[in-house]
Amino acid sequence: FTSGGSEANILGMYLLRKVTGKKYVIAPKTAHFSFVKAENLGIIKLKFAEVDERLRVDPDSVESLIDNSTAGIIGVAVNTDAGTIDPIEELNELAHAYDLYVYVDAALGGLLLPFMKVLGREIPKFDFSLERVAAIGVDPHKFGLVPPPAGMFLFRKNFSDNIAFDAPYYLGNRQYTIVSTRPAWPPVAFWAVIKALGRRGFVRLTEKCLRMTSYARKRIEEEGFEVPIEPETIIVNIKVDNPRKVAMELKRKYRISVGISKKLSSLRLVIMPHVNEKAIDRLLEALNKLLDKR
Amino acid sequence: FTSGGSEANILGMYLLRKVTGKKYVIAPKTAHFSFVKAENLGIIKLKFAEVDERLRVDPDSVESLIDNSTAGIIGVAVNTDAGTIDPIEELNELAHAYDLYVYVDAALGGLLLPFMKVLGREIPKFDFSLERVAAIGVDPHKFGLVPPPAGMFLFRKNFSDNIAFDAPYYLGNRQYTIVSTRPAWPPVAFWAVIKALGRRGFVRLTEKCLRMTSYARKRIEEEGFEVPIEPETIIVNIKVDNPRKVAMELKRKYRISVGISKKLSSLRLVIMPHVNEKAIDRLLEALNKLLDKR
Repeated sequence: FTSGGSEANILGMYLLRKVTGKKYVIAPKTAHFSFVKAENLGIIKLKFAEVDERLRVDPDSVESLIDNSTAGIIGVAVNTDAGTIDPIEELNELAHAYDLYVYVDAALGGLLLPFMKVLGREIPKFDFSLERVAAIGVDPHKFGLVPPPAGMFLFRKNFSDNIAFDAPYYLGNRQYTIVSTRPAWPPVAFWAVIKALGRRGFVRLTEKCLRMTSYARKRIEEEGFEVPIEPETIIVNIKVDNPRKVAMELKRKYRISVGISKKLSSLRLVIMPHVNEKAIDRLLEALNKLLDKR
Repeated sequence: FTSGGSEANILGMYLLRKVTGKKYVIAPKTAHFSFVKAENLGIIKLKFAEVDERLRVDPDSVESLIDNSTAGIIGVAVNTDAGTIDPIEELNELAHAYDLYVYVDAALGGLLLPFMKVLGREIPKFDFSLERVAAIGVDPHKFGLVPPPAGMFLFRKNFSDNIAFDAPYYLGNRQYTIVSTRPAWPPVAFWAVIKALGRRGFVRLTEKCLRMTSYARKRIEEEGFEVPIEPETIIVNIKVDNPRKVAMELKRKYRISVGISKKLSSLRLVIMPHVNEKAIDRLLEALNKLLDKR
């Protein structure tokens, strides 16, 4: 267990460096800012690969960046800006061909995509069934319904000696995380959620989120706003000029919090299980008032 | 706010490197293992200075390690093993003389030492009143009575541009921590504790911890065990053979958790506000049974 996706992503970078002894990691241009944190901290160096019009990484661009200083490739299973999924299977093939490893940032998608698959959506593989996937980050404090801090850093067991930290004054004298003292309740809470919801409960939640995503998309367009990228999972964007300013005014005047995407010049809605029609309608009403007045 | 001391210490190392552009940091041999985490991660490199018989760093040894690759010096205000305090004032003087900065790990002491001073104990300076102290880590989840995760990373404001991380999709688009999403309640809880206890409440708690420390020391010796280092703050050690094994048996047979010190070959009691006479007596009874039987 980690504090969340950032800690997991940074540990993933640490794993790629330690296992290969190399320093360069190839990341999609759309990768989460925590990978830049890992670079700033000095853990790895990043080379950024191009993405397609749906912000999915382009495997040809990734391949063109591979050289003998490459430690691995980052794939994102549900990216932060557009909610699309990198072609992890193709990254896995590249990793196989060049003897590299893949780290998958599934903070957002790890507890969503498997249930979308059950619902009949076509979901590409992104997990340990791909042999070059060395580690995956998944956040139970997103679709696992656990309050933060609740992240997971999953890694293949054969790497464990490489990435353990000594913790001499604890009885379990090894750690696999950056944070040392941490609350004990997040794994317990996650276990309780799993027991309470079961697979069926997670599928139902996922269905609700997808339904709300469709609803949001429909309503946004009804109100005359542009959705810059057709939603593939549970992120819907609303194109606006100066999204940071709009988001700040939404917060100040209407106490509504939305994210933003600089890349898409948009407000960024992440449709989590608590989002309902009313919340979406309220946002659009506020947005209309705000933009009319300007 | 951070997740705790480890995140703060790692950020402290990041600050020393970023502000100076240099990679080597001088740490007491007794420094917390989180500094080794920072080294493993590749953030800095450590040179270890010798410590005296009370496990306080030796300023002469620190000085002998300074060269033009030195980014800074770590001082520990209440070290993990013995509960003693590094001579931070002397480290500050060295830093001044060689144009370096000091990072103070006050995870344990930050919310204890100021109140010990009020109680008339002689406490050396360890805070921003020393001009070369660039940053300090303090854990409200230790003597601040807040549940984990609750750490603080305090740094001089003029360094803030150097050590900010970009967080593009948040409205407040800068972060000063490794962890990104984090719970909002720890600072609120800490504020509530401060309001509820006030300075007088903290002084009273500190007094209780010191009284319990004296009680523990007295009782340990009454039972014929050796206390390898006279307690200076709130850590009491009990010399035993094979402390890890003893601690594990205490846990397994009596459900009593104690830390250990490899350096002192001892069980390590940290006298927090919840520790009372009964707990200490119970531990010693269990320990007597355990060691008689072997």
